[in-house]
Amino acid sequence: MIAQTPPMGWNSWDCYGAAVTEDIVRANADFMAKNLKQYGWEYVVVDIQWYEPTAKNHYYHNFTELCMDEYSRLMPAVNRFPSAANGAGFAPLAEYVHSLGLKFGIHIMRGIPRQAVHQNTPIKGSTMTARQISAQSSICDWNTDMYGVNCTTEGGQAYYNSLLELYASWGVDFIKVDDICRGYPVAEVEAIANAIKHCGRDIVLSLSPGPARLDMAEHMKQHANMWRITDDFWDRWDLLYNMFERAEKWCIHSGVTKTHGYWPDADMLPIGPINQVYGKENRTKFTKDEQITMLTLWCIMRSPLMIGGDMTGFDDFTMSLLNNPELIEVLQHSHSAHPLFRKKTEAAETCAWMCTYENGDFCIALFNLGETEAEVSAVLPFGTNYSCYDIWNKTEFTVTDGCISQKLPAHGAAMYRVTKL
Amino acid sequence: MIAQTPPMGWNSWDCYGAAVTEDIVRANADFMAKNLKQYGWEYVVVDIQWYEPTAKNHYYHNFTELCMDEYSRLMPAVNRFPSAANGAGFAPLAEYVHSLGLKFGIHIMRGIPRQAVHQNTPIKGSTMTARQISAQSSICDWNTDMYGVNCTTEGGQAYYNSLLELYASWGVDFIKVDDICRGYPVAEVEAIANAIKHCGRDIVLSLSPGPARLDMAEHMKQHANMWRITDDFWDRWDLLYNMFERAEKWCIHSGVTKTHGYWPDADMLPIGPINQVYGKENRTKFTKDEQITMLTLWCIMRSPLMIGGDMTGFDDFTMSLLNNPELIEVLQHSHSAHPLFRKKTEAAETCAWMCTYENGDFCIALFNLGETEAEVSAVLPFGTNYSCYDIWNKTEFTVTDGCISQKLPAHGAAMYRVTKL
Amino acid sequence: MIAQTPPMGWNSWDCYGAAVTEDIVRANADFMAKNLKQYGWEYVVVDIQWYEPTAKNHYYHNFTELCMDEYSRLMPAVNRFPSAANGAGFAPLAEYVHSLGLKFGIHIMRGIPRQAVHQNTPIKGSTMTARQISAQSSICDWNTDMYGVNCTTEGGQAYYNSLLELYASWGVDFIKVDDICRGYPVAEVEAIANAIKHCGRDIVLSLSPGPARLDMAEHMKQHANMWRITDDFWDRWDLLYNMFERAEKWCIHSGVTKTHGYWPDADMLPIGPINQVYGKENRTKFTKDEQITMLTLWCIMRSPLMIGGDMTGFDDFTMSLLNNPELIEVLQHSHSAHPLFRKKTEAAETCAWMCTYENGDFCIALFNLGETEAEVSAVLPFGTNYSCYDIWNKTEFTVTDGCISQKLPAHGAAMYRVTKL
Amino acid sequence: MIAQTPPMGWNSWDCYGAAVTEDIVRANADFMAKNLKQYGWEYVVVDIQWYEPTAKNHYYHNFTELCMDEYSRLMPAVNRFPSAANGAGFAPLAEYVHSLGLKFGIHIMRGIPRQAVHQNTPIKGSTMTARQISAQSSICDWNTDMYGVNCTTEGGQAYYNSLLELYASWGVDFIKVDDICRGYPVAEVEAIANAIKHCGRDIVLSLSPGPARLDMAEHMKQHANMWRITDDFWDRWDLLYNMFERAEKWCIHSGVTKTHGYWPDADMLPIGPINQVYGKENRTKFTKDEQITMLTLWCIMRSPLMIGGDMTGFDDFTMSLLNNPELIEVLQHSHSAHPLFRKKTEAAETCAWMCTYENGDFCIALFNLGETEAEVSAVLPFGTNYSCYDIWNKTEFTVTDGCISQKLPAHGAAMYRVTKL
Repeated sequence: MIAQTPPMGWNSWDCYGAAVTEDIVRANADFMAKNLKQYGWEYVVVDIQWYEPTAKNHYYHNFTELCMDEYSRLMPAVNRFPSAANGAGFAPLAEYVHSLGLKFGIHIMRGIPRQAVHQNTPIKGSTMTARQISAQSSICDWNTDMYGVNCTTEGGQAYYNSLLELYASWGVDFIKVDDICRGYPVAEVEAIANAIKHCGRDIVLSLSPGPARLDMAEHMKQHANMWRITDDFWDRWDLLYNMFERAEKWCIHSGVTKTHGYWPDADMLPIGPINQVYGKENRTKFTKDEQITMLTLWCIMRSPLMIGGDMTGFDDFTMSLLNNPELIEVLQHSHSAHPLFRKKTEAAETCAWMCTYENGDFCIALFNLGETEAEVSAVLPFGTNYSCYDIWNKTEFTVTDGCISQKLPAHGAAMYRVTKL
Repeated sequence: MIAQTPPMGWNSWDCYGAAVTEDIVRANADFMAKNLKQYGWEYVVVDIQWYEPTAKNHYYHNFTELCMDEYSRLMPAVNRFPSAANGAGFAPLAEYVHSLGLKFGIHIMRGIPRQAVHQNTPIKGSTMTARQISAQSSICDWNTDMYGVNCTTEGGQAYYNSLLELYASWGVDFIKVDDICRGYPVAEVEAIANAIKHCGRDIVLSLSPGPARLDMAEHMKQHANMWRITDDFWDRWDLLYNMFERAEKWCIHSGVTKTHGYWPDADMLPIGPINQVYGKENRTKFTKDEQITMLTLWCIMRSPLMIGGDMTGFDDFTMSLLNNPELIEVLQHSHSAHPLFRKKTEAAETCAWMCTYENGDFCIALFNLGETEAEVSAVLPFGTNYSCYDIWNKTEFTVTDGCISQKLPAHGAAMYRVTKL
Repeated sequence: MIAQTPPMGWNSWDCYGAAVTEDIVRANADFMAKNLKQYGWEYVVVDIQWYEPTAKNHYYHNFTELCMDEYSRLMPAVNRFPSAANGAGFAPLAEYVHSLGLKFGIHIMRGIPRQAVHQNTPIKGSTMTARQISAQSSICDWNTDMYGVNCTTEGGQAYYNSLLELYASWGVDFIKVDDICRGYPVAEVEAIANAIKHCGRDIVLSLSPGPARLDMAEHMKQHANMWRITDDFWDRWDLLYNMFERAEKWCIHSGVTKTHGYWPDADMLPIGPINQVYGKENRTKFTKDEQITMLTLWCIMRSPLMIGGDMTGFDDFTMSLLNNPELIEVLQHSHSAHPLFRKKTEAAETCAWMCTYENGDFCIALFNLGETEAEVSAVLPFGTNYSCYDIWNKTEFTVTDGCISQKLPAHGAAMYRVTKL
Repeated sequence: MIAQTPPMGWNSWDCYGAAVTEDIVRANADFMAKNLKQYGWEYVVVDIQWYEPTAKNHYYHNFTELCMDEYSRLMPAVNRFPSAANGAGFAPLAEYVHSLGLKFGIHIMRGIPRQAVHQNTPIKGSTMTARQISAQSSICDWNTDMYGVNCTTEGGQAYYNSLLELYASWGVDFIKVDDICRGYPVAEVEAIANAIKHCGRDIVLSLSPGPARLDMAEHMKQHANMWRITDDFWDRWDLLYNMFERAEKWCIHSGVTKTHGYWPDADMLPIGPINQVYGKENRTKFTKDEQITMLTLWCIMRSPLMIGGDMTGFDDFTMSLLNNPELIEVLQHSHSAHPLFRKKTEAAETCAWMCTYENGDFCIALFNLGETEAEVSAVLPFGTNYSCYDIWNKTEFTVTDGCISQKLPAHGAAMYRVTKL
């Protein structure tokens, strides 16, 4: 089964933008294998523009020349990924990542390169050409690399088949498809899902960027493994605050089918050193309490977890967010998460979430969304006597009034495993 | 705790409209006490216009004279409720219902009688008059009995306090407040909730009619025990079909606080003899499969259950919908209900819901929303081996592939208690 | 022909609100006959709540007792209109106004008195009663006097016929119907228009309050003589400023049919002493330039002119706005008014309007809508040489470049009659 | 003054789509000079894709190679316009048209060729390149030739200056800029207007396609000479019917400034032989009455008149639409057009328009928009006695009741010059 639990891994975007290089990927893969693999972390994902030789940071060079093979398919820039030389593509890097016991992922933009369309290059497995399969006015708002693909043509499906054939041959385990989730071109989503299904390899399909359309939830549940419920998420409280509303809307839409899991995705975790292309001093602007709030929400709602910072620069606090087995257990072995309440008064804004473990125990998360310390309480669904385990502080206590209460700092959170007595 | 589980009872509207009389109420209370009380059914509710002497059916007499006391409070029409003679109000009828081990409820319209306003009658406990507390342009669309109350005035709260004081003195256990849920006048909701809180008696607060505003969910959870998520529900498939979408939106908003339970309300069950004022031959137009679908959805989503038909005319099939202990157990002892999927193809439209029992077992409901027989399947959240108990057919079986499947007739449903092996 | 040119007159609202009395009406009629009649001013209109004995100012007494005849028809309060004693109604006052060579008008609220409905009084000429013809939930937002009338009933038309029969018998020449223009209940508009048509007297029909619905323009042109294009207009620059946009939308909708004229109505002129019920020191807050701007716009767009201030307290400047024959000529003998341009830059906001005289001459109005002095220019449609007459300053000059330009103070206006040389 | 009256001419689109050739242009210019010039017709306009060597009809070849000079400027395809050989561009053809006493126009797409952007070619008069001035995600929905231009860059204005410099050197008198009117990119409109202003030649600026944004009317009046108020207009009654509503909204926005005229444009006249690239048998599907209705509306509202059919194939009826001096006089010497009414009943749908001649005479147009013969009447603004000249039938009569009436066939029109007696 693909993505039976929410995928966990690392993605290069938050720290290196469009400019990540092979040595950075290898260093982070090494770090993950050594320090995080045992907790469930496994995907190492190269984000956008690995085919652009001159990328320097998070900005794109409009209309610049991209590395492309004879079949209109983008290829890694060898100056940035030396092992890709001689047409090897990402196979050597994937092989290395696999050798560490991890999995390898890449980002792609929906569509076919504009340069392929203007040069009218061939499509593998089709007599149609790039120009013929392109969807002329289907373009990305913020990046000039691609035209959309007209997937009602035979050549459109052939093109995506040829991409996935290539990626499967490289050993890719995960693709994050960009410029596809918000507008949601249905035929193109289906063509990609179909190509994955027939490529001969298990590959997780991640759709980006959000906000995803709630009215397409059932379609996403059938065709993708994860989809972004927000626009790009960064280390700003307003974005984290807003995630609670999105999480509430999407919480009923995670789970598994017979073949795959599907998970609304709250986006990457901007923790530790991020924005590294702008100098080594950039670290997340989230407070520690905010980072705890973020991980608590992501885990209880079962969002995929993708580390955004350069792991090689993580400190002990950052590691403590990622190597807590009881936290990861909520992510992997709970179900039916939903908010219990959300209250806003002049004095305080608080909310609580609940989910259920496989054995029927509850997990309760309390959140202080306000700007001052506040007491947050949640009433348990049945009866009065419960034993409570504090997942962040690793302490235990008992309640006899059916209610769990905690003083929390501004922007802070707490999380408990609760067992009926 | 008030309404710790979703209220269960009988309401006079579906069968008698605005024209119910005391003997009918007593006959239904007798029936409930004898045949349904043991399964959890307890409320007997007199619906709209008990203060209107000439009411004949479901239609209202615009601007007609209503029975009212000297404090602008509506009183039972003695020609219809003889025990209310001499100012006794509903006290004798409530006492009778209580003597059967049941609880007694009434319907009221939000506001103050227009006739009180035009006559400018006094308000008990206030020096303000009916005219002074009325909200001049706040009227009901479909009934001319009342003006809204301006609850920012001292007299507005005094008026609602005087109502609840009277109802508590009668022994009322449940009030269904009408013309309040859809528009949701916040101050008026709070004034009523406040009056209940201070009346010295536990009284369930039910808000009607819907569709309730989803953006007011948290306010309702704090101030009411149940609120209508639809406009009036009748025995038509399109209305039942549409309830699935509403249920999906509201499913995360049921539960308990320290003082009360709160339950999104899918409205009364139009089963058995309904519309009795139009002749004795009117029975529900729902098929048996549709009635099973209705009860399955209402119970898994934990909607209050209010019988709409005249119970004294129930046949065995109708009774079988109401006296199934395993079905009532889902209503009373589950949590975290939510849809697993909803799929629509050219061939079929199906969906499945899941909730969880106190002990961690799952309840799975399968629905065929289409017009032809269809196979419906649901994948269980964890692992493959489960024992399954069919709640409607009272049979057991085992699955070993993590998936429960069933052929269902058009508009049909199935429901299972599922235990991990 | 009714209202062949835009009606000109005086209305009691701006100065006396709901509280005008007979002596005030007579004094203003006397003033008009003596000082303004010769310029075209003719209507004397008693505004809202002449049937309310206790009215004191612009505020309404909710649900208060109104003077009403045995047929559910409101009657003048005799304490305020002594000549109405003994059921004479407004006949004596109308007769007096007619004796001065003027015309008499009244305001009515759409609908039937709520007190008639609650008392269920008869309708003249129908077997239906007030309760039966009332439109139960059709009420005014801001006044509690009336319910709407269900004009699809025979009794609904009979009621309006009975009103107009009464008004015609009094000698009413003009009715301003309130609470009807914005929501525009089509059947009720038609019932009133129909009642006027058959009452045996020429009566102008004015609809209030706005903003009127542009999509109903053709219906209004057929059934009414004037309709308000704004909500209540008062002596505030923002309201005058906004009138330009409304005037632009409505300018093509004035004119005549074979039987009547129809005129979009920019509302009363709050000039001179207004709000007199609050003390004698209240005068318009408009500057002189703003008053000139107002009269210029109203006349070029051919809005009805209804004086809002108490005429007996007018000073020379105020009179100069009303007794300028060249200005009134634009109102009465031009056509095809429309804006030439509207320009907004950081430095200035200006616009110009044009209309055409019967003989083909142009009238050009220049407006400075900004906050500082500005030059405003308008290009004439054909050729270069024109003689120009300044309507406000009564001077003449010639232009040879096809363009008329003028420096104008903030909020100021100029107006020219332009003849091709 | 540029475009002092609404431009009149011929455009190649309706008859030849993207595939017009030099010989066709010359033949139509010859025809116009001989047969229509004396009535005011003067522009000969080459429509879209004169730079596309392989264009065959009204369909575009996506991403095909276009003829372009070294400065990113599109050039005529020499195989279609032989006189453009050796870099002469349209200069020889323009010279020929001028030699006939006519004026020459071309169509351009807003923006810079995508092929220029992908090849990163230079911009004349700027150090910036095509790639640098392109607006990456600003593309046309229906044609792949161009990217939008970022006109906030110095190079953006330089590019448009270089275009207009070239066109002025060719002798172009009129440019129809496409893909600019509906979306209305303000900076790009201003850059083009600015380039025209400084190019040293009077050039009419026409903006296409519509519907234009009414909220940008004042901006268009300042920067353009004509702008399309509809999407492409063809020979279908529904499109002609809908034009009346658009005409009503735009009628107040035509006129002149000191430097130029501005005219809302109802689009080309699909008359005579159209769609010639699909075979010689295609002629307009409009009935004769509909063609009369079209010309009547276009002339009274003062829309530019651009003939869409191949003039060399015109029959006598078609010519009669174009060589009626009294009709052209309305177009060129009237003002203040506006609808008098528009009435729709079950039996008929009619409307009337009015405008005014320089000397004060009125022009009245009557329209039968319904499906059966109907009488249409219009009331004249002042008085009763008028002499009427029927512009289409060239007859005269007198009215004495202030009203002009005519029986009209379905979809028919009549038009009168009316003089007060």
